[in-house]
Amino acid sequence: MTTRPAPTPADFAAVFVRLHPHLAALNELLRHEITAFEPEIRAMADACIDTSGKRIRPALVFLSGWRDDAVSADLVKVAAVIEMVHLATLVHDDIMDEAEVRRARPTAARRFGPEAAVLLGDALFAHALHLAASFPTTEVCAAVSAATRKVCTGEIIQTLRRRTAGVSREDYYRVIGLKTAELFRVSCQLGARLGGGSAEFVAAATSFGRGLGIAYQIYDDLADFFGDEQRIGKTLGTDLASGKFTLPLFILRDRLAEAEAAALTAELTGKSSPDLARRLAQMRELDVFAAVEAALGEELAAAENSLLSLEETPAVPLLLSLGQALREQVAKLRPA
Amino acid sequence: MTTRPAPTPADFAAVFVRLHPHLAALNELLRHEITAFEPEIRAMADACIDTSGKRIRPALVFLSGWRDDAVSADLVKVAAVIEMVHLATLVHDDIMDEAEVRRARPTAARRFGPEAAVLLGDALFAHALHLAASFPTTEVCAAVSAATRKVCTGEIIQTLRRRTAGVSREDYYRVIGLKTAELFRVSCQLGARLGGGSAEFVAAATSFGRGLGIAYQIYDDLADFFGDEQRIGKTLGTDLASGKFTLPLFILRDRLAEAEAAALTAELTGKSSPDLARRLAQMRELDVFAAVEAALGEELAAAENSLLSLEETPAVPLLLSLGQALREQVAKLRPA
Repeated sequence: MTTRPAPTPADFAAVFVRLHPHLAALNELLRHEITAFEPEIRAMADACIDTSGKRIRPALVFLSGWRDDAVSADLVKVAAVIEMVHLATLVHDDIMDEAEVRRARPTAARRFGPEAAVLLGDALFAHALHLAASFPTTEVCAAVSAATRKVCTGEIIQTLRRRTAGVSREDYYRVIGLKTAELFRVSCQLGARLGGGSAEFVAAATSFGRGLGIAYQIYDDLADFFGDEQRIGKTLGTDLASGKFTLPLFILRDRLAEAEAAALTAELTGKSSPDLARRLAQMRELDVFAAVEAALGEELAAAENSLLSLEETPAVPLLLSLGQALREQVAKLRPA
Repeated sequence: MTTRPAPTPADFAAVFVRLHPHLAALNELLRHEITAFEPEIRAMADACIDTSGKRIRPALVFLSGWRDDAVSADLVKVAAVIEMVHLATLVHDDIMDEAEVRRARPTAARRFGPEAAVLLGDALFAHALHLAASFPTTEVCAAVSAATRKVCTGEIIQTLRRRTAGVSREDYYRVIGLKTAELFRVSCQLGARLGGGSAEFVAAATSFGRGLGIAYQIYDDLADFFGDEQRIGKTLGTDLASGKFTLPLFILRDRLAEAEAAALTAELTGKSSPDLARRLAQMRELDVFAAVEAALGEELAAAENSLLSLEETPAVPLLLSLGQALREQVAKLRPA
């Protein structure tokens, strides 16, 4: 039995350059789709199409369906469907979180009021599914609507568990597997399918997408404590303040002496005011960063593993470059 | 040229009896679909499947697709899709309206909190589209998602115009044409299509559905002033209290002397407290009821007109019976 060499990730900066025209085509399609909205709400819907977003899900669609640097119009369309669902969920999330700012711009809830924002998110979601219905078969509608229900379910479970005691790490992984990993997963799945990938590659890409989504959410939860407020464009420590149990908090609590662990639980369950400065200092002292980074690395390695036997597929090194880019983003958060 | 006799509406009570087994099949399918939800939110989703609802949209699907008293499984499925979208919009509407009770039961927003209710509505909507994607073609997905976006758009326009001066009757008709008539329209359209109706009948049923939806919303707005709180299961005068301009209020204002009309506008724009008792007394004095009933009758007659040349289609007398039943419901509101 010969062992094949593991495929090498492509250089992310070079991948990003190759993605650029397709992401531009995506922005153009998103703007175009907004013109289908009734005139009274067109400007509101347009305001939700944040062109400064990271467009991770569209990138996953494009890279999973990549063929000779060409990206078909169908891939751009499915990327637009998924990104529009994502933007709709952000509009609703910002209502829940009472967030006023996202990516340095006022949220829809802030600009138009929470009532209009609920309905605007609904309209965006409905339009995403309408665009999905323009494919010749129901495959895109079926996959995207199922994933969306799971995203919402993850958010509901998370909302119901806020400030409640007894949330476990398993609960945390269950929630992020739904709220974040589902859209990542379906992005890779549909990208690979529409790019004409083999059944083996579709399965591998789907599994990679799910794992990358979990790793990405862990990164996001890490950035809530170790990020740079200026750079990520939001306030730090919101998870502690809102009683959301995330991996950095689980790890911190495990490492604290009993009395301090109880104090942290009291803060997370709303029984006492959160002391962010103290918790941040403890996270640094107890090297919570390294433990979260290791857990994230495990998810990422498992995700990358799904692709390793397919090194001759041109999409594989491109997808692996995303994993590599995430690792680098995580490293940038590492405290000095 | 011979004039054919206009078709006679079937007796609604008899139609209702014939509808009953199909509405029971619908309830069964809705309950079954809930089992597809993740276990953590299944009970919450189930609580939204109000079995005491009037099921007007499913009735429109069934009657538009009626053939020899048989209703195909496809019709039950499309009825479930549309009813689930409708239930999702109710969950979101009750958040906007801060309603605590609907049909004598606590609303989802009241039971689970507004945050979870936003997401629960989203999950119901996503699942409706997922069920729509189980048809062999994208037709149901496309029609239902387009209609849903319009429903949401109507609600957004209405929300933005609350308590604002200068809302016209045209604005009112535009909003109800979107927020209510769209799902009625698509119910008839898809019912007729899936029932194998001729292109002529599909067009006629679609037009009937839209007109019936407008008439139905006028009835609903009339009931907000002339209904029986016990019977309709909600507080009267909520439109006045929330600054929503509806047809009874337009007609009242037109009939009031200048100073009183200005006082009513001040109440509707939030500049003074609404005086419901006074406005109700004025509505009675100035016979607002008859004027609204006449306007509603015009919409209904136009809707029924679409069907008149198709009297040999078995669905026609059945659909006409719904118009007749609405007329009778309106008559029951007439003040003594």
